[in-house]
Amino acid sequence: MAKRILGLDPGLAILGFGVIEYDPATTRDRSPHVTVQDFGIIQTPAGTETGQRLCTIFEDLHSVVERYQPDLVSIEKLFFYRMGNTILVAQARGVVMLVLAQHRLPFVEFTPAQIKQSLTGYGNADKSAVQEAVARELKLDAIPKPDDAADALAVALTAWFREG
Amino acid sequence: MAKRILGLDPGLAILGFGVIEYDPATTRDRSPHVTVQDFGIIQTPAGTETGQRLCTIFEDLHSVVERYQPDLVSIEKLFFYRMGNTILVAQARGVVMLVLAQHRLPFVEFTPAQIKQSLTGYGNADKSAVQEAVARELKLDAIPKPDDAADALAVALTAWFREG
Repeated sequence: MAKRILGLDPGLAILGFGVIEYDPATTRDRSPHVTVQDFGIIQTPAGTETGQRLCTIFEDLHSVVERYQPDLVSIEKLFFYRMGNTILVAQARGVVMLVLAQHRLPFVEFTPAQIKQSLTGYGNADKSAVQEAVARELKLDAIPKPDDAADALAVALTAWFREG
Repeated sequence: MAKRILGLDPGLAILGFGVIEYDPATTRDRSPHVTVQDFGIIQTPAGTETGQRLCTIFEDLHSVVERYQPDLVSIEKLFFYRMGNTILVAQARGVVMLVLAQHRLPFVEFTPAQIKQSLTGYGNADKSAVQEAVARELKLDAIPKPDDAADALAVALTAWFREG
């Protein structure tokens, strides 16, 4: 039976999501068997209060999870860049983890280097090389837009490569 | 009409809360008119998954808010100490802010120095001086326990001093 992986690239302003489906019986010969179901973003306007933005993420992510009923969720691991921004991203991530726990969804996490390594074979690959790999693996005619959605598909594919 | 302030000291393992009530008509002559309604902690076991702990915070904080129907919430501001811990605390804080926004509750934030200054007149006061001030202001026979609940009452009193 087909399985679904929901990839998430969590942020406060833009949360990218991407849903892929594969047949676990045929993962070893993998390329023809993984397909994209959907991708997009949950966006919260910059002018809005943080609490209101977190409400939007909470509600919209519940809708995404209910619509696609994933078997596994794959998330990009949070790193420390700039502190102010990290706290905002971590707050949004707390709401994401709450929603996943409320649906009792298992999840895996990957670092940016693990994602790049999985998609291109090179842990320091640049963004465009990763995006081209996403389009190639999923047999898409164009690179998915916006970048946050492409990143979410990349982390979903990483889970499929490593766990599928 | 009496007003209620809910003070919160957010953490992942222990979230302290404290509820005070005051009569806005008499705030200038303040000491006799503020009373403690309740205080306590929301605790999440260390061995549990982060998502499950965030669910507990979400549900228990909803219960506290519904029980006490505060007019204002006062929260200790998050600072950067150690990064790993800060991300966990910020994730818990994201869930706290979600719950407050779902109840459309206004909130104010104070730094530890602002809380110490408000309670003791000295921004570098030690923990015991702050706790003694909490007990004195609220006419309590003993310092509230545990520390996280006393801290939550301190941040609630700070909001009352500054906003009440």
